[in-house]
Amino acid sequence: MNTDHFPSRLLEQAVDEFAKLPGIGKKTALRLVLHLLKQEHKEVERFTGAINTLKKEIKHCKVCRNISDTDTCNICSSPSRNLRIVCVVENIKDVMSIENTQQFNGGYHVLGGIISPMDGIGPSDLEINSLVERVERGEVDEVILALSTTMEGDTTNFFIYKKLKGTDVKISTLARGVSIGDELEYTDEVTLGRSIVNRLNFEDSIKQL
Amino acid sequence: MNTDHFPSRLLEQAVDEFAKLPGIGKKTALRLVLHLLKQEHKEVERFTGAINTLKKEIKHCKVCRNISDTDTCNICSSPSRNLRIVCVVENIKDVMSIENTQQFNGGYHVLGGIISPMDGIGPSDLEINSLVERVERGEVDEVILALSTTMEGDTTNFFIYKKLKGTDVKISTLARGVSIGDELEYTDEVTLGRSIVNRLNFEDSIKQL
Repeated sequence: MNTDHFPSRLLEQAVDEFAKLPGIGKKTALRLVLHLLKQEHKEVERFTGAINTLKKEIKHCKVCRNISDTDTCNICSSPSRNLRIVCVVENIKDVMSIENTQQFNGGYHVLGGIISPMDGIGPSDLEINSLVERVERGEVDEVILALSTTMEGDTTNFFIYKKLKGTDVKISTLARGVSIGDELEYTDEVTLGRSIVNRLNFEDSIKQL
Repeated sequence: MNTDHFPSRLLEQAVDEFAKLPGIGKKTALRLVLHLLKQEHKEVERFTGAINTLKKEIKHCKVCRNISDTDTCNICSSPSRNLRIVCVVENIKDVMSIENTQQFNGGYHVLGGIISPMDGIGPSDLEINSLVERVERGEVDEVILALSTTMEGDTTNFFIYKKLKGTDVKISTLARGVSIGDELEYTDEVTLGRSIVNRLNFEDSIKQL
C-alpha cells in the first residue's frame, strides 16, 4: 500500500511502528491501528501501559535466567520441584512449551539463544558460564539438553557437553523418534533410523499411554 | 496455550492485551511481545508512544469526517481538488483504497459505518446528516455512493438517496461489472447480468486502457 495516501501522519507513524513487528505487514498494521483507534482511551492506555510496564519491570531469574516478575522465578523458588534436575533450553517459549506438557518437575536454564556463527552468536553471548557455575557449585545432579535438533542446536549441545565433562553431573538429552500421530511413511529417514536404533521396550512404552 | 504456565504476570498481561487485537491469537501475541521485549527501551517507547499520540491527537476532519492531523484534512483543504464532487464511503480504509487508484480528484464523506440493524447501527449513528447538510448548503454538485455491494450497503445507499432526492444534487454510484482480470466463467450471474445490461461503448472502454 502506497504510504503517500495516509490521511494522517500520526496514523502513518503508528502503522509503521506496528509493521516493524515480525509477520505484521502494512495492511495488517493498518487494520490493528484502526481497531485501537476505535477503542476507548482507557483501553488503548491499558494496551500501551501493559507493554511499557513489562519492558520496564521485567527481571531475569538470577538462577535460571528465565524472565520473571521477581529476582528468583516461580519455578526456581518452588519447594515442590526437584531443582537438581536442570533442563537446558534456548528461550522462554521453550520453557512454556515444556511446562505445558506437565511432564517435567525439575528446573530450567535458559541460554537465551544457541551458538550460531552465521548470526554472530558465540558461546560468550549465551548463559553457558552461569550453567557451568551452577553445576560446579554442586547444585545440579542431571542436565537435560533440550535444544533444537538443528546443526546449531547440536553444536551448542556439544559445547556444553565438553564444558561439563570434567564434572560428575549426568548429561542427558531429549528422546528422538517418530512423533506421536505421525505416519511412518512420512517420517524422515534419519529420525526413523534413530528410532529403530534407540527402540523402546514395548511394555515400558505402553505404560506411558 | 494454557495461560497458567506464563513465567511472568507482566508478560501474561502484555500478551492478553495483544490478543485482544483482531486476528491475533495467544501464540502470535506471545511472539510479538517477546519480540518487543528484545528491543531497546527506546524502540519500545517509540512503539507505544506512536499509538498513544495517535489516540490523543487524532482529529476528524470537520468537512468530510475522515481522520486527520488538522481540523480540516489534507484532501478537503487542497486547492487542486474539485470538492464539489463528493464520494461517500463507509470508512477511512475506503478513502485510502480510492486514493491509491489515483483516478479520483474530488472530495469524500466518511459515514463511519453502514446501516446494519443486526449490529444495532442505525442512520443516526452514521455521518448521514452532516452529508445532507453539505448538500443543502449548496457545496456539492455530485454525490458518488461508493459503499459495499451488500444488503447493508444497498440499504444505506437507498436511505441516503431518499434523503437527497429533494435537492438538485446529482447522485451516482460505482460502476458494477466484471472485474478486470476475471474470467467470465467464474463471474457470478448477477454481476454478469448487470454488466450486459449496463454495457459500455467499446470505443469509450478502450480509451481507458
